[in-house]
Amino acid sequence: MSAKYEKNYFSSDFTLGILGGGQLGKMLLYETRKFDIRTKVLDASDEAPCKIACDQFVLGSLMDYDTVIDFGQDVDVLTIEIENVNLDALEQLEENGKTVYPPTRALRTIQNKAKQKLFYVDNGIPTAPFSRFAYKSEINDSIANGALEFPFIWKAAQFGYDGQGVKVVRKLEDLEALPTGECIAEKMIDFKNELAVIVCRNPNGEVRTYPVVEMEFHPEANQVEYVICPARIDDKVARKAQEIALKVSEKIGHIGLLAVELFQTQDDEILVNEVAPRPHNSGHYSIEASYTNQFEQHIRAILNLPLGNTQSKVAGIMVNLVGAENHTGEVLYEHMEEILALDGVTPHIYGKKQTRPFRKMGHVTIVNQDLAKAREIAQQVKETIKVISKQDG
Amino acid sequence: MSAKYEKNYFSSDFTLGILGGGQLGKMLLYETRKFDIRTKVLDASDEAPCKIACDQFVLGSLMDYDTVIDFGQDVDVLTIEIENVNLDALEQLEENGKTVYPPTRALRTIQNKAKQKLFYVDNGIPTAPFSRFAYKSEINDSIANGALEFPFIWKAAQFGYDGQGVKVVRKLEDLEALPTGECIAEKMIDFKNELAVIVCRNPNGEVRTYPVVEMEFHPEANQVEYVICPARIDDKVARKAQEIALKVSEKIGHIGLLAVELFQTQDDEILVNEVAPRPHNSGHYSIEASYTNQFEQHIRAILNLPLGNTQSKVAGIMVNLVGAENHTGEVLYEHMEEILALDGVTPHIYGKKQTRPFRKMGHVTIVNQDLAKAREIAQQVKETIKVISKQDG
Repeated sequence: MSAKYEKNYFSSDFTLGILGGGQLGKMLLYETRKFDIRTKVLDASDEAPCKIACDQFVLGSLMDYDTVIDFGQDVDVLTIEIENVNLDALEQLEENGKTVYPPTRALRTIQNKAKQKLFYVDNGIPTAPFSRFAYKSEINDSIANGALEFPFIWKAAQFGYDGQGVKVVRKLEDLEALPTGECIAEKMIDFKNELAVIVCRNPNGEVRTYPVVEMEFHPEANQVEYVICPARIDDKVARKAQEIALKVSEKIGHIGLLAVELFQTQDDEILVNEVAPRPHNSGHYSIEASYTNQFEQHIRAILNLPLGNTQSKVAGIMVNLVGAENHTGEVLYEHMEEILALDGVTPHIYGKKQTRPFRKMGHVTIVNQDLAKAREIAQQVKETIKVISKQDG
Repeated sequence: MSAKYEKNYFSSDFTLGILGGGQLGKMLLYETRKFDIRTKVLDASDEAPCKIACDQFVLGSLMDYDTVIDFGQDVDVLTIEIENVNLDALEQLEENGKTVYPPTRALRTIQNKAKQKLFYVDNGIPTAPFSRFAYKSEINDSIANGALEFPFIWKAAQFGYDGQGVKVVRKLEDLEALPTGECIAEKMIDFKNELAVIVCRNPNGEVRTYPVVEMEFHPEANQVEYVICPARIDDKVARKAQEIALKVSEKIGHIGLLAVELFQTQDDEILVNEVAPRPHNSGHYSIEASYTNQFEQHIRAILNLPLGNTQSKVAGIMVNLVGAENHTGEVLYEHMEEILALDGVTPHIYGKKQTRPFRKMGHVTIVNQDLAKAREIAQQVKETIKVISKQDG
């Protein structure tokens, strides 16, 4: 085969390996189908969403060194859909010449939140003030000697996900139930907006940013209700957010997507909250709204294909579908037909059989030429659909 | 379960059965995933594209009565992705109370092209003049006695697909290689444009049409090069095309999609060419361009869910990817990276391992706010990508 065919992912024996078989992986797999790319997925659950959507499914722990090494041997490019994977194994695979994107070095910076925060400080990237503690007990000492004041945000350094591993600490007792290991205590930011920017980068050095999105919070519950693209902010603030996201992207040296979560402070400073080197909840709107959705973009990037247009065809709003309070058991999506009757509404049901309060069960995207109209319909969606259990319904 | 949950396809033991496991079925299956609908597919090929994308795959002939009956027993709704299925079996399943969409009656009208043409005549739907023959030999008699004149279009009454079963007959010898069975001879229409309209209909009686699309032909090769949405025609002609498509839809009594292929004559009359009661090549543009793509729409319709918005977010053009002349063997997509670098370009590779001249291997969609710009890029795509074989490349 001549050089021009070397990267022919579209018809050869090329296999893409994905560590993690969750919902993000599943949405990634749909896009591999368009390109007819062979896929192989590793996950510890025999009921992983990806199982039905990949060419080959391997059951095993993402944290087990030998399992990851074995899995990676015969794939051509290895990527992740979750950060909690065995990095020593990834590093070994890289040393053996395997293509691993994002690179292990970027994952090491990101996987440990204390390391991630130190990285921001070392690289002059604005972030909320914090202290790092090797053990939780050190927090108590720090409070006792006046170095740390309530309230603050406790974050586990490792293995937090989906709201796990983060807690607002307002008094000593709040610390009691928390894990004892490495953690950080971060200053609470009185932010005006929570924003996010997805940056994509391929090995050729091509870099593009998606528009800034905005998380709109419920006025009382302090929970994100809507992810809105484009964010309803000043152009100047949007440009600053994109510049900072690009700086993080460049310094961290990722390949593929990097979702950068940001705070816009009351005086319009931009602070980096945290990053994820993969498709991200804040980019789900892109399936319906963008010229190139985040999943296709991640594949383009890690295969060193030209990046696609990150702009939007229409305004997009995403609503997470979470399990209703007081409902546990076999899931039922109540009033689904009513939201399907609304203009520009697309539900994405993740296929989890059991619901429980606040469990992420899917998301709904609302698109419209007019952002204000999309926002109205999004509210109707939010107020109409209920994720309940059959037993309690 | 109370009445309001009866149609809860999203979390119950509901199974959608699909007769046919080809590429159309595969694109349909992607959309079932968004709704988390359990799927079961029947196809005679163990390498059917759907095999990897459905919950359950059954190997067997779509034309075998017992196979189709067995397959249909335990699904809740049965649909098709190809017309050539055993209709007696479908009818029996319907009589047993099974939900079959499109209904067998509509499929009977469509499956046999002579019957389809008679249906247009009976219902006052404009179509090209034709004669029906029980055997090909009757054509020769008809020519001999002057009732039929060259040139005309011969069409097999049954089982034609992908250009098979249709031939322009200019002299007696052109008839020689053709099958001997039931057929029609249709007057050649000197058309200005070939158009198509997709109509969707659900059991509740909700009906919507997609915009009129236009097939642009190669100036010399007389082959469709681009499917363009919206068609570049007068509003008056577009309205007439939609009205006629709606009339066909109403009279034929389909449920789901009905793709209506039309001729616009030199004096702006609209004639119905033929119809397909399923997702159609002329609607592939909708994946990237429409608020609700044709595959999601077909699912909404056959599950009696509210129909989605059929309008476009942006202009869309589709280019079929067919095997290059003089290339037979293991497929190679040459210059794929170059087309991926163009704005708004999405390739859909169907995953066939072997190419041969003119074999349909995939399609590429080009979207843009500006139709003229999309048309320019579509031409670049057409002139750049080559579907060749590795051996000959």
